[in-house]
Amino acid sequence: MSSSRPYNREFVRTFFTSPTAVEGEDDSAKMIRSAAQLRGMKAPDVWVPDNEDATAPNMRAEGVENIVSVVAEHGADFPGEIHPRVVWHRESPTTRYQGFQQMLEIADPDNGAVDHIDGFVIPEVGDLDDWKKADEFFTIIEHEHGLEAGSLSMSVIVESGEAELALGDLRAEMGKPSNNLERLFLLVDGEVDYTKDMRAMTPTGELPPWPELRHNTSRGASAANLIAVDGPYDDIRDVEGYRERMEENRAKGMTGIWSLTPGQVVEANTAPLPPKEGRWLLDTGETEVELTSQDGTEVYAGDDLSLAEADDGAYVLTVAGNEQRLDEDELRDELLDRTSYVPSMSDIVDSMEEFEAAKEAGKGAIAMTQSATVEIDGVEVELSKDRMWDEATYQAAQTPITLFQDVYANRPDQHEELEEMYGADVVERATSVGN
Amino acid sequence: MSSSRPYNREFVRTFFTSPTAVEGEDDSAKMIRSAAQLRGMKAPDVWVPDNEDATAPNMRAEGVENIVSVVAEHGADFPGEIHPRVVWHRESPTTRYQGFQQMLEIADPDNGAVDHIDGFVIPEVGDLDDWKKADEFFTIIEHEHGLEAGSLSMSVIVESGEAELALGDLRAEMGKPSNNLERLFLLVDGEVDYTKDMRAMTPTGELPPWPELRHNTSRGASAANLIAVDGPYDDIRDVEGYRERMEENRAKGMTGIWSLTPGQVVEANTAPLPPKEGRWLLDTGETEVELTSQDGTEVYAGDDLSLAEADDGAYVLTVAGNEQRLDEDELRDELLDRTSYVPSMSDIVDSMEEFEAAKEAGKGAIAMTQSATVEIDGVEVELSKDRMWDEATYQAAQTPITLFQDVYANRPDQHEELEEMYGADVVERATSVGN
Amino acid sequence: MSSSRPYNREFVRTFFTSPTAVEGEDDSAKMIRSAAQLRGMKAPDVWVPDNEDATAPNMRAEGVENIVSVVAEHGADFPGEIHPRVVWHRESPTTRYQGFQQMLEIADPDNGAVDHIDGFVIPEVGDLDDWKKADEFFTIIEHEHGLEAGSLSMSVIVESGEAELALGDLRAEMGKPSNNLERLFLLVDGEVDYTKDMRAMTPTGELPPWPELRHNTSRGASAANLIAVDGPYDDIRDVEGYRERMEENRAKGMTGIWSLTPGQVVEANTAPLPPKEGRWLLDTGETEVELTSQDGTEVYAGDDLSLAEADDGAYVLTVAGNEQRLDEDELRDELLDRTSYVPSMSDIVDSMEEFEAAKEAGKGAIAMTQSATVEIDGVEVELSKDRMWDEATYQAAQTPITLFQDVYANRPDQHEELEEMYGADVVERATSVGN
Repeated sequence: MSSSRPYNREFVRTFFTSPTAVEGEDDSAKMIRSAAQLRGMKAPDVWVPDNEDATAPNMRAEGVENIVSVVAEHGADFPGEIHPRVVWHRESPTTRYQGFQQMLEIADPDNGAVDHIDGFVIPEVGDLDDWKKADEFFTIIEHEHGLEAGSLSMSVIVESGEAELALGDLRAEMGKPSNNLERLFLLVDGEVDYTKDMRAMTPTGELPPWPELRHNTSRGASAANLIAVDGPYDDIRDVEGYRERMEENRAKGMTGIWSLTPGQVVEANTAPLPPKEGRWLLDTGETEVELTSQDGTEVYAGDDLSLAEADDGAYVLTVAGNEQRLDEDELRDELLDRTSYVPSMSDIVDSMEEFEAAKEAGKGAIAMTQSATVEIDGVEVELSKDRMWDEATYQAAQTPITLFQDVYANRPDQHEELEEMYGADVVERATSVGN
Repeated sequence: MSSSRPYNREFVRTFFTSPTAVEGEDDSAKMIRSAAQLRGMKAPDVWVPDNEDATAPNMRAEGVENIVSVVAEHGADFPGEIHPRVVWHRESPTTRYQGFQQMLEIADPDNGAVDHIDGFVIPEVGDLDDWKKADEFFTIIEHEHGLEAGSLSMSVIVESGEAELALGDLRAEMGKPSNNLERLFLLVDGEVDYTKDMRAMTPTGELPPWPELRHNTSRGASAANLIAVDGPYDDIRDVEGYRERMEENRAKGMTGIWSLTPGQVVEANTAPLPPKEGRWLLDTGETEVELTSQDGTEVYAGDDLSLAEADDGAYVLTVAGNEQRLDEDELRDELLDRTSYVPSMSDIVDSMEEFEAAKEAGKGAIAMTQSATVEIDGVEVELSKDRMWDEATYQAAQTPITLFQDVYANRPDQHEELEEMYGADVVERATSVGN
Repeated sequence: MSSSRPYNREFVRTFFTSPTAVEGEDDSAKMIRSAAQLRGMKAPDVWVPDNEDATAPNMRAEGVENIVSVVAEHGADFPGEIHPRVVWHRESPTTRYQGFQQMLEIADPDNGAVDHIDGFVIPEVGDLDDWKKADEFFTIIEHEHGLEAGSLSMSVIVESGEAELALGDLRAEMGKPSNNLERLFLLVDGEVDYTKDMRAMTPTGELPPWPELRHNTSRGASAANLIAVDGPYDDIRDVEGYRERMEENRAKGMTGIWSLTPGQVVEANTAPLPPKEGRWLLDTGETEVELTSQDGTEVYAGDDLSLAEADDGAYVLTVAGNEQRLDEDELRDELLDRTSYVPSMSDIVDSMEEFEAAKEAGKGAIAMTQSATVEIDGVEVELSKDRMWDEATYQAAQTPITLFQDVYANRPDQHEELEEMYGADVVERATSVGN
């Protein structure tokens, strides 16, 4: 990507790392050479040629050369941002100095790559004072190479208790005249090393969920106007698990996630965007299941919950073995409580447009209605869900649309796929609503 | 309520907001006029005429006038505290100046309302420096209007990541000579705007649970001797959900909650008080269910768990399809593990009195026993649960009683309903125990 | 234990408190006299003669004498560290002065106990400034009694919101020249008093889970190079619950826990060590169950999930009433997703050795395979689980081994039981791997 610095992304969905030099291959740069040519939904918002953990220590010198040559050749055409990861450690001056040298080399204008480098990723940071040491190296590199001050952005991997604590002080420190921390871009969690640093253990060796770390990272990003990204999801085969993790993350305000493969990139580029089709969910007492849309009716086909009409016109609803006799209104109320609706992109745009029109007409709040015919064991019930929209609802609902617009503005290479996904009309309306 | 400042509530159960001016009504003050006349369990501990989000921007000037006239007329008789919410925003000097002017007007003694105004609610605060700007306006208003210094209390809505971070610094900043933050009263979460500020998303658009925010608010309140209040629960029809949220909140030390309707006020005024009747809970493996009291026996009527007597006098307990053969003692142990008891107000008072007597007699710890006959599938089992009480147990158990006493002392308008609920005798003993 | 100061434990599994003086016994020191003679798995890593909550206020003077005499007699032979708890309160200068006097007396070399005292436990601390007051008393005591500076370590009980906040500042304050906080050792949660301080309530009076407190304590310990310990688990009969709590704690990086009885000490000394035998877990949709090993086959005997072979060679897997037709590969994939493996001590050592050998041979990452025959409803399926190990995986997996080695080095009295548990060969390999 061209060096439009400082960074102009409001959201980052995907943080994709590739080994910079692999031993035993004809072309040790094979992995980054192929990553650099990804396009569309397979190309990440942020691509990270990884000269740290993904690359063997003895290959990192070659990794620096590979980054330089591959980015010089392919960087101009790469659709996302490019942020190589270099080595760093809060407890090792040697490692920090190596990281400095790696950045100095990659950013040397004589090597022809720096125009396409948006920043660097610094792993294993500690206290904020440690972040400042890295920041100072960025500053020196910019001066040394005649680059614009602040033009290289800095992202950090939070993978220690002390770095997590630093997230709380970031906002207060960023404006100070003695640092250039305004160059900060991504706050990325690194749960593998964090788990080691916290000396945590699980019976199977899988990573603990660390909900507080993710909250604190997201909050730190919110307070300092940065972008929060979750760490790698190791079980590459488990697409469902990856999606669940991302849904959990978005509920924490953490929109981005690490991707280890182009397949994960596709998933993570897609997941935060509103769905093409809306869908109804039913809480069966056991779990929340998606209803199946059949000819305009939303059908529940499971057996955790059952419904029958009695002779006297009443209904019998059975949940977890408990029978309830309900009249029609009570049944409707019960099902309203048990159902929820996941709006489609088009639904969200509709609601926003409707609210904007109402506001223009002087109304502060309007009711939005979502209707459906729900069918359980052959019994059909008409449901109408009302939700009040006021300015705050409107603005909260806007987040996925703002995200979509950010994607649309910054990733022309994904326009075609987005139009295939949603249809040109919805894309067009979604890009213009709320502005 | 009369202006007994600084505030003397130790607990606040309910924070009830009302629009200050509604367009298209004969009397634009209709909503606050009716709210001002609530009494008893329908009247909140803190009433908030809301001149911010609940009131359309173009109606807020009229809202100020309405607050003044309604509070001047009804404030003296209102049984709770009165804390109007004015406009404020950490990122808008214009909005902050408007908030200042609104407060200046409402607090003008010439308008006749200020004697019944206990404080103001400041929304959308940011860093602690932003809180201090609001505090400074309170100070100026008090001086300008000849009010006693510190007599107007200040409550804030925490609805941004940076305000959440500020909660951690509050205690250290409050005593400093250059501010008057000692006037702080309530720390209120505002999850709708917080969700927007954190850029969080959920599939259905419902609010994320934000457990860490609530913890941090409660902890901030505990450390600074303030009171924590949770934000609005939008689904007004969902009483059960509102109760579950409040139970979760109380386990976090957050006793108060926002109420949007007098119906929610009744629920939230009642929920934190101990129940009239104790009850037994049974963990069925699937969930925890309440047993039904029938003629002194606690009966389980579900079918997740079943119990039968075998020919040889042993028992067969079946949980989730797994059968266990148990002798009488093993069965009793198993059921002791699976049951728990929710003490009534009277039970708590009994235990406290018993412990006080024991302490006077020189004992540091005593066993409290709770007995019941539990019946499952016709089989009856006698259970006796012992719990050791020492000074720490006693003091922890005291929290609901202290709350009750705070309510009783500050809300004479609720005495009648409390006596109807518990009986005069229990009320009398509950008001005197532990003092 | 001999006074090998400053403390040399990297991990502490068990924090066992005993009342220092019990009224109405012939020997008021009975409890600590018997605790001082515990050995092997029944002896805690840290033993706490408790002159605070466990001992009645009027017995605490006698408690000090008892500590002195029992530790003078038995301390040299006690296999764990000895850290008496004295009285302290952030809000009471009187209590703090009493705590100082208790420590001064216990640490007096003329009394003969101090050579076996490793430090003191300070309860009810507040802000970091309060911790510094205690630290200053330690410094004075060391000077007054001619003890080596810093030789008495200090552990604190975190049982207030303000102490929880202090955990975030610890790292930055510890190195300052005006304090000796480097003497800090354990950060122990005290949930009973914390619940009171936070004014939290639960229906049954049981303690709230406080996940955020435990996270913050663990993170504070990680950042300041200290050791985190969870508070008491009151329900002594509930061994299963105690184990679950410890598993949850370890996933938070909190390895230690309070023990109230020698039985709990055995549980808590054992729980963080890897198991003797590996085991397979199956996610049935409802819950995760352990498979039963029978003649080399891992058998599922429940009925939440069922499996049958169809006539055409396909398989029918039924989970929660939902049938799936799968071919052999799909079935294997589904079961790979649903199973996980808990490695034994021997498995972990094997993997580490294998990775070390690979690293020596120049490989940065290798696949580790775990195979099993899983049997469901008589149908057998061969599973092979691969997991990539790189340097980070290796280091994270090392935590339980480092713990084991710390135990082995510091607790010779447990060697025999460890060898009985694992066999001498596994113990031998586990003590040498990774060094």
